[in-house]
Amino acid sequence: MSVDYKLYDLGDFRLQRGATLRGAKLAYKTFGTLSPAKDNAIVYPTWYSGQHPDNEWLIGKGMALDPDKYFIVIPNMLGNGLSSSPSNTPEPYNASRFPQITAYDNVRAQHQLVTEHFGITKLPLVTGWSMGALQTFHWGAMYPDMVERIAPFCGSAKCSRHNFVFLEGVKAALTADAAFNNGWYGDKKPEKGLRAMARVYAGWGFSQAFYRQELDLKALGYSSLEDFLVAFWEGFFLPKDANNLLTMLWTWQNGDISDNELYNGDFRKALGAIKAKAYVMPGRTDLYFPPEDSEFEVAHMPNAKLIVFESVWGHFAGGPGTSPVDVKFLDEKLKELLNS
Amino acid sequence: MSVDYKLYDLGDFRLQRGATLRGAKLAYKTFGTLSPAKDNAIVYPTWYSGQHPDNEWLIGKGMALDPDKYFIVIPNMLGNGLSSSPSNTPEPYNASRFPQITAYDNVRAQHQLVTEHFGITKLPLVTGWSMGALQTFHWGAMYPDMVERIAPFCGSAKCSRHNFVFLEGVKAALTADAAFNNGWYGDKKPEKGLRAMARVYAGWGFSQAFYRQELDLKALGYSSLEDFLVAFWEGFFLPKDANNLLTMLWTWQNGDISDNELYNGDFRKALGAIKAKAYVMPGRTDLYFPPEDSEFEVAHMPNAKLIVFESVWGHFAGGPGTSPVDVKFLDEKLKELLNS
Repeated sequence: MSVDYKLYDLGDFRLQRGATLRGAKLAYKTFGTLSPAKDNAIVYPTWYSGQHPDNEWLIGKGMALDPDKYFIVIPNMLGNGLSSSPSNTPEPYNASRFPQITAYDNVRAQHQLVTEHFGITKLPLVTGWSMGALQTFHWGAMYPDMVERIAPFCGSAKCSRHNFVFLEGVKAALTADAAFNNGWYGDKKPEKGLRAMARVYAGWGFSQAFYRQELDLKALGYSSLEDFLVAFWEGFFLPKDANNLLTMLWTWQNGDISDNELYNGDFRKALGAIKAKAYVMPGRTDLYFPPEDSEFEVAHMPNAKLIVFESVWGHFAGGPGTSPVDVKFLDEKLKELLNS
Repeated sequence: MSVDYKLYDLGDFRLQRGATLRGAKLAYKTFGTLSPAKDNAIVYPTWYSGQHPDNEWLIGKGMALDPDKYFIVIPNMLGNGLSSSPSNTPEPYNASRFPQITAYDNVRAQHQLVTEHFGITKLPLVTGWSMGALQTFHWGAMYPDMVERIAPFCGSAKCSRHNFVFLEGVKAALTADAAFNNGWYGDKKPEKGLRAMARVYAGWGFSQAFYRQELDLKALGYSSLEDFLVAFWEGFFLPKDANNLLTMLWTWQNGDISDNELYNGDFRKALGAIKAKAYVMPGRTDLYFPPEDSEFEVAHMPNAKLIVFESVWGHFAGGPGTSPVDVKFLDEKLKELLNS
């Protein structure tokens, strides 16, 4: 299999929680050409368990993220299996000894790539779905003078308590499988746990209305509800590495733009420090990133606008290209933001 | 320990799905006195995993369900550990061989108790929370000439597809534990699975707003979110029998007032056949019984009114006495209904 991404060497990367990831790697893929003035770069981080190919649905000729106009960088999240992760890190930090990674760590690594490797000093836009939105908010709060616009969609600047609890359920289902063996499952993956986790996720990912309208059958073409649970949900999580999933889950649960030396836990202050023009885009029926949390964020950001996906697709209103109507809406809003 | 309930012998009880539960028992408790005219009985079925003491918060002097006025019967659901259940049924139908039980079976058993044992022919009210509401709807549809009023709260007449998926997650988490051993765990209960199931449930039981407002701490008095997850949620499910939980879960997932010889799957017809004056009461923020499903039901019932708990307590707006404001609201509505 040919590899369609590059690895950036982060060196000995000191993490926010104390560990050092020696020889840490950031996997990334770029689209388009960096302009001579280096003023056309867009950073577009990945989401929970996703990798850069899972982000490509938002990039294309004639779309807001047009590679003819922009230099688009997709950095893979630490822990996602391509950047440094439990599954690809040598001893002693391998598998379940892989250190805790924060969104702050991720964005600092991405910043290193963007500035030191590419020499970029201004970003017209950072955008992302879900945990990509979490990283997008971090970009705005950590580098307010560098980021001109942000468009976090279906995500939040801080993991809400309810979202945390939803993830506790996902984690408990995965780790209830004895085959998980505290992360030391080697080549024998915890299949039962991965399938259980998928079934837990299934109720959260799409809304009550999505299921009521049978869009799993009528829009996505599955042959029955059980087929959707097996083929879509179990099929999605089964190939993933359990320790990788748990690393990213921890990152998500501990996401908070103010949990660092810049803001010392003052969430309002961190939101207030985001200078970027922001389109904050929650989904009306997103069960773990409900619009109310976005409203709070927008109310405390100096230059932000709340734009809601009026969609029954739940969390999947925002990605990954699953709902065509919502993709179109998102693309139009991104164009509007980029042209402003 | 003294026993505060009675056992009614259902005899050899033929179940809707084909098995016969020989010597089946229905555990029940009554409050108040049956009038000489036998016209003051209220049936008030239990909810998922609940037993009759878990229903008592809605009964009391001066309340709608006043034992000075009414003869209140709480029948325990089959599978709940007191009525015939996997945990108390002798071989060969014990443990994971316990047969599939429908809500139809439950209500037919309750009807037998009420008519044959007590000689009651009219019921001024049937009411219940959650799966108790499911049984309430069944009473209305199965015995339309006997039931004068129904008040199903935070429940539905048919398990929605989304609700089904939520329960798939609960089930998958419980059964991912190898100790579950396909239900043959004997005395060594699947503790990890029960705890996992509890964590999955935690995100569904209360709403996003409940957690956002920290009502687990501020209203319920837990010392931290983790304390709430362990003490409230894990503490709730750990003492329960896993096979019992799965029996009731199957009953829930397959709940449908029209899935019987009376209506042959015609849900609208079954709703239309409910003659009882009905107060259908969903919770505004209930994540698995959203008001939209109740709206559909009410629209197809001849004599029903939709009354929504405007509450952030999610599913727990309706029970079990957890939210005092909502209990007061419910009690007032029940009084209004009983006096009409």
